[in-house]
Amino acid sequence: MLEKTTRMNYLFDFYQSLLTPKQRSYMSLYYLDDYSLGEIAEEFGVSRQAVYDNIKRTEAMLEEYEEKLLLLAKFQERQRLIAELKKELSKSGHAGAEALTIVEAIEKLE
Amino acid sequence: MLEKTTRMNYLFDFYQSLLTPKQRSYMSLYYLDDYSLGEIAEEFGVSRQAVYDNIKRTEAMLEEYEEKLLLLAKFQERQRLIAELKKELSKSGHAGAEALTIVEAIEKLE
Repeated sequence: MLEKTTRMNYLFDFYQSLLTPKQRSYMSLYYLDDYSLGEIAEEFGVSRQAVYDNIKRTEAMLEEYEEKLLLLAKFQERQRLIAELKKELSKSGHAGAEALTIVEAIEKLE
Repeated sequence: MLEKTTRMNYLFDFYQSLLTPKQRSYMSLYYLDDYSLGEIAEEFGVSRQAVYDNIKRTEAMLEEYEEKLLLLAKFQERQRLIAELKKELSKSGHAGAEALTIVEAIEKLE
């Protein structure tokens, strides 16, 4: 299991398009820009408790989306397989160079 | 662009976990089991119009999810790259056999 902040960063990355603009702003400031709850509250002119509640609810929503769609779990499994594949291809040297370029394109798709 | 029924089958496959049980039932009978609107209406004891409206709304929801998450678009692009990769690996014969096994595992993940 990933450390919580890292996990939330990933989940936010995968599912942010399903959140409201307010949820996105709070989560982005809290998790990506490392603002405190108090700083976000001040920025938006709301109580610290309101920001806290909103972020907790959003975190729960992100976990629910992950339970249903498994985008993070599949991403991690794919990353693991891609790393294995790259190792395998590097063994075949020049012969694997073309294949490696395609693997890198698959990797960028995530 | 895929033919509509095929596209809806794919979108349903990717996003069905985000639908309500009723939406899932109607869509599954209509798109996977090829029931008519009338047959579904009879099965659930509702009007044909109610089934029609529900299915139209669900189709729109699926397209909205796709607009936001692009799971089908990314899946198609990944399939294209995987096919290219397999062709490339088959050229290297025995040397590419191990890599091919990993590629097939990636393919199964979708």
